Amino acid sequence: MIKTRLFTPGPTDVPPEVLIEMARPIFHHRTERFREMFAQVNAGLKSILKTANDVMTIAGSGTAGMEAAIACAVPRDKKVLVSNGGKFGERWAKVARVYGLDVDEVVLEWGTALQPDLVEEKLATGQYGAVITVHSETSTATACDLEAIAKVVAGTGAILLADCITAVGALPLKMDDWQVDVVCGGSQKAFMLPPGLAMVALSDKAWANVDAIDAPAFYLDLKAYRKSLAKDDTPYTGPVSLIRGLQVSVDAINAIGIERVWARTALLAKATRAAAEALGMTVFSTQPSDSVTGILFPEGVDDSFRKALQTTYGASVAGGQNELKGKLMRINHMGYVDPLDTIGLIAAIEYTLADSGVDVEIGKGVTAATRILRDWD
Amino acid sequence: MIKTRLFTPGPTDVPPEVLIEMARPIFHHRTERFREMFAQVNAGLKSILKTANDVMTIAGSGTAGMEAAIACAVPRDKKVLVSNGGKFGERWAKVARVYGLDVDEVVLEWGTALQPDLVEEKLATGQYGAVITVHSETSTATACDLEAIAKVVAGTGAILLADCITAVGALPLKMDDWQVDVVCGGSQKAFMLPPGLAMVALSDKAWANVDAIDAPAFYLDLKAYRKSLAKDDTPYTGPVSLIRGLQVSVDAINAIGIERVWARTALLAKATRAAAEALGMTVFSTQPSDSVTGILFPEGVDDSFRKALQTTYGASVAGGQNELKGKLMRINHMGYVDPLDTIGLIAAIEYTLADSGVDVEIGKGVTAATRILRDWD
Repeated sequence: MIKTRLFTPGPTDVPPEVLIEMARPIFHHRTERFREMFAQVNAGLKSILKTANDVMTIAGSGTAGMEAAIACAVPRDKKVLVSNGGKFGERWAKVARVYGLDVDEVVLEWGTALQPDLVEEKLATGQYGAVITVHSETSTATACDLEAIAKVVAGTGAILLADCITAVGALPLKMDDWQVDVVCGGSQKAFMLPPGLAMVALSDKAWANVDAIDAPAFYLDLKAYRKSLAKDDTPYTGPVSLIRGLQVSVDAINAIGIERVWARTALLAKATRAAAEALGMTVFSTQPSDSVTGILFPEGVDDSFRKALQTTYGASVAGGQNELKGKLMRINHMGYVDPLDTIGLIAAIEYTLADSGVDVEIGKGVTAATRILRDWD
Repeated sequence: MIKTRLFTPGPTDVPPEVLIEMARPIFHHRTERFREMFAQVNAGLKSILKTANDVMTIAGSGTAGMEAAIACAVPRDKKVLVSNGGKFGERWAKVARVYGLDVDEVVLEWGTALQPDLVEEKLATGQYGAVITVHSETSTATACDLEAIAKVVAGTGAILLADCITAVGALPLKMDDWQVDVVCGGSQKAFMLPPGLAMVALSDKAWANVDAIDAPAFYLDLKAYRKSLAKDDTPYTGPVSLIRGLQVSVDAINAIGIERVWARTALLAKATRAAAEALGMTVFSTQPSDSVTGILFPEGVDDSFRKALQTTYGASVAGGQNELKGKLMRINHMGYVDPLDTIGLIAAIEYTLADSGVDVEIGKGVTAATRILRDWD
C-alpha cells in the first residue's frame, strides 16, 4: 500500500484533527452555536492576519474573495494597476476587466516580482485608484516585497489589494502595520483545510471605497458580509463543516504562534532550495517565495518525473503552467508539512532523478536539507 | 500542529484505506455477506502464510492465538521445549504452565536466539512433544532461524509452534515448505490493523494433536474455530469491522506480493542499521530481526530521548523492557512504513541525539539510509 503525500502548493495536506472535526454531524448555521463558533474563528483569523479589521469568511475559493474585493472596493473613476507575473496576476486583470475597470496591466517576466519603484512611479501620476498584486505567485513560486509596496501605496489615495492566498499563515504579513488595504486568503493553503473558503479583510480606507461604490454584486457583495459579521453571522448559508475545520486549524496556528509558523515555513523553503542546489538543480525565480519552491528540471528530465515520483514514492508535487509547463516542479512548504516530510521528499526526488538518468550523488540533497532543518523550532 | 508518526513495533501505523473501511456501517456477522468476506480474507491469509492450511482468525490479541495453540495442540504426556529469549518467550512458558504442561524453559541471553543445534540435541532424547519459539522476539528485536529449527523438528514426532506475531507479513515465512506446525500472527503488526485479531494456522500434524487432546478451553478451543471455518464462519461473534479492515490490508499485501513485502521490510531494517552505525550507535542483538531494529542509546543518553523525539518531531519509537529498560529504542519496519518515513525518522533521531549532547555529524545517518533505500522496489 503506497503512502500518499501531498506536496502541491494547494490543496495542501489536511491534518487528521481537521478531517475528523469536519466529519462530525452537521448542525444548522442559523443558531447560537454557529455564531459562537464563527466569532471565535474570526478572532483567531485577526491574530493570523495581524489586523484589527474584521476578516470575512466567504464560502467559495480564493478567487471569490479576490473578485469580491475587486468588484466592491476598486474605484471606477481611476485606473487600476494590476501586476501580472503569473497565472494569478493574469486572473485579477481579467476579473478587473469583467467589472469594466480601466486596467493598467504590468506584465512581468515569469519568476520576477512587482517592484516598489515601479508602483511609486505609476502612482505619482495620480491616475490610479488601486493596485492589485499577488503576494506569493503560486505559478512562479515568486514573492513580492509586499511591505515595501504597501509603504508606497499608503502614501497615496490609492488602495492596495493583495492576493495573499498562498501567503497568509506562511509568509510574514502584518496587515495593519504594513497598511495593506485588502488581504485575501484561502482555506486550502496554510490553513490546512480542503478548498472552499476565502478570507477577506479590508482597511478603513478600503471600506470607504466600498461604501462609495454601487457594486454589481450580490453573492460577492462585501457590504452583506460586513453586516452579517457584525452579528457573527453569514449573509448566505454558512459553510458549517469547513468553519468547524477552520476553527481547529486557526486555533492550532495561534497555539504555535504565527511568527513561529512563518519561521518554520521559511526554514522548509531554505532547506529545499539548498537540497536542489546540492543536487545541481536550479531554483526558479529571482525572488523565491518561502511558501512554495520552484525547481527547474535538469537537462533531459521532463514532466514524467512528477508521475514517477507519485507512482513510486507516493509524493505529489505540482508541475509548471503555461510557459513553465514540463519545465519545473513546485513543492509546498505551507501548513501541515514538516522537516521529516521534506527530507523524505528530497530522498524520493534523488531516487527519481537517478531513475531518470541524471547523475546524482545519492544522499547529497538530504544531507543539505537535514543540516538546515536542524534549526527547526 | 505536530504530525504524529508511529514507529512502534506494534501497534503499527494503520493506512487511511483501512481506517475508512473500518469506519463504515456495521453489519451482522451471521449473514451471507459476512461469510463471503470471511472466505475471501481466509484465502488471502493463506497466500501470506504460504500455506494450504486454513487460517483461523480469532477476536483477541496475539496472545489469545498462541494460548489457543498451546492449550489445544501441545501433547500432555511429553515435555514442551519453550525458548525464552525475551518478554514473549517468557510469556509462552507461563501459558504452558497454566495448562499443566511439563515445561523445559530454555532461557537465552537477551539479544540471542534459539539455535537449531540445541533443539536437535533436546529432541534427540525423545522426551519432547512440542517446541515453542518466537520467530521475531519484539522485546529484543531478535529473530531466530525458523526455517532451520523447523527442519529439525519436522524429522521428529514433536510439533513446532511459532509465535510469528512480529513476523507474518514481514519476515520470510513459508509455513508448508518449512513444515512449521503452528503459525500465529496478530493484526497490529504487518497486517496494518488496530490490535484485536489473532490468526492461527495448524499443520495436519498439529491438528492430529488437537483431535487427541481434550483441551480445557472454550473460547480458545481451536476445534470450534475449525468447525465454523468450514462454513466460512466464526464460532462466536465475528469482529466485523476488524475483518473488513483485514480484507483491505490482506488484499493490499497480496497485490504487492508477499516476497516483495519481505524484501521491502528487510531493506528498511538494513537502512536503519546502517544509519545507526553511521551515527556511532550499536544495533542490539546477535541476530537482528528485520521487522524491528533495537538500537542502544549512546553513552549519556537515557529514555528521555524517546520523549523528546515524540514531543519535538512527533515520532514514537518503543523503548526497552526489563533489563533493557532505558537502554535502547526499538524501531518498526512492518506494514505501513516506507523509505520516506524511515529517512525522516533518522533525521529526527540525529537532531534528538544532538539535542541530548551527543556529538553527531548531522546528515551522516540519513545519507547512509538514503543510499541503501535507493534499492527500494
